[in-house]
Amino acid sequence: MDSWVAADNAEGPSRGARKRAAILEAAQQVFVAHGFVGASMDQVAATASVSKQTVYKHFSDKEALFREVVTNVVRARDGGIATDFLSTGDGPIGERLRSFARHFLKGVMQPNVLKLRRLVIGETGRFPELGQSFYDLGPKRAAQQLALALSDAAARQGLSLDDPQLAAEHLLSLILWIPLNQVMLLGDENSFTDAALDRYADVGVTAFLRAYGFADG
Amino acid sequence: MDSWVAADNAEGPSRGARKRAAILEAAQQVFVAHGFVGASMDQVAATASVSKQTVYKHFSDKEALFREVVTNVVRARDGGIATDFLSTGDGPIGERLRSFARHFLKGVMQPNVLKLRRLVIGETGRFPELGQSFYDLGPKRAAQQLALALSDAAARQGLSLDDPQLAAEHLLSLILWIPLNQVMLLGDENSFTDAALDRYADVGVTAFLRAYGFADG
Repeated sequence: MDSWVAADNAEGPSRGARKRAAILEAAQQVFVAHGFVGASMDQVAATASVSKQTVYKHFSDKEALFREVVTNVVRARDGGIATDFLSTGDGPIGERLRSFARHFLKGVMQPNVLKLRRLVIGETGRFPELGQSFYDLGPKRAAQQLALALSDAAARQGLSLDDPQLAAEHLLSLILWIPLNQVMLLGDENSFTDAALDRYADVGVTAFLRAYGFADG
Repeated sequence: MDSWVAADNAEGPSRGARKRAAILEAAQQVFVAHGFVGASMDQVAATASVSKQTVYKHFSDKEALFREVVTNVVRARDGGIATDFLSTGDGPIGERLRSFARHFLKGVMQPNVLKLRRLVIGETGRFPELGQSFYDLGPKRAAQQLALALSDAAARQGLSLDDPQLAAEHLLSLILWIPLNQVMLLGDENSFTDAALDRYADVGVTAFLRAYGFADG
């Protein structure tokens, strides 16, 4: 292993990073096409046009590779959306939440994110650890960041918010459930237009604001 | 085939019905253990202690068998809950909705229902038709029945409900999403106590009533 690492360093970090990205991209394709059980490190290596040793240099086993694919896709999906929302704390809450909801829902409903979610859900009965990254980086992290933002917004409006975490999860429920449950069960990843998703985001936020007594501005 | 049917009729319908139920029970086990692709009619026959011919007499192919397993489980899960709710239209809406929500959430969160949902979601990318029964008999049917009940309750309270179908889906979102998404991604079908589920049902209904302006009685 040491000689490979040394060779890689000699080639410069950018080449190593490019190979790593190519392996992750290939792995995502292979996992989605064949499932976790059906996918092999050989297929990933062939698809990425690298040697199997190179795959193992970057990822110790199939499980580590899968976790990194999930981490990568979920991070790319909502990179900083909740943080942006938090950092622009001065605008009207309704406007800010609708903007967040539209972005977040579109991110969740991207075909590659949906395919990965389907894969995680399908395999997590046999491999419970596979869904942990998806859950932690996805709904859990989003709810935690939203809870902070909602607490702050409530304080500004003189509202008391007993359980900000629950409020955040209710908001996510209202935004995500209808289209996500439908596409998960019916399998067509392109069944919603952007306009239809925007509407689900908007009406979900409206229901949330009323449920929690926020002024809709 | 005709001779088997005749033999079965001669043995009386109850024996045929018992065999059919045994095949469905066995099929559910085999599908959950091996997935749709991995399951075979041979395994189902062996698990049900019947001949493969008997399996084919009742179900024309693996897909028909799977659809019937789904139909069976989803029907058993929420048999008449929404109808009960509709037929007792005189009680206070909050009380009736909480009772419905607790029953419905517990039904959805039964381990065998969760396993089947996981299986459907995992396979529906490759076999889109598999999820149709689950969707039609589950969330779609529940939302349709709820929409009628909510329209009726709104009229009694002098509220206008512009989109009863959307309201019903928002109610289901608030009841189901938090525990269901968590268990789907993390894979532990026994991670919630009944008390925890009841709480999700109750707070979901409270948020819904406020969102739609219903008096909570």
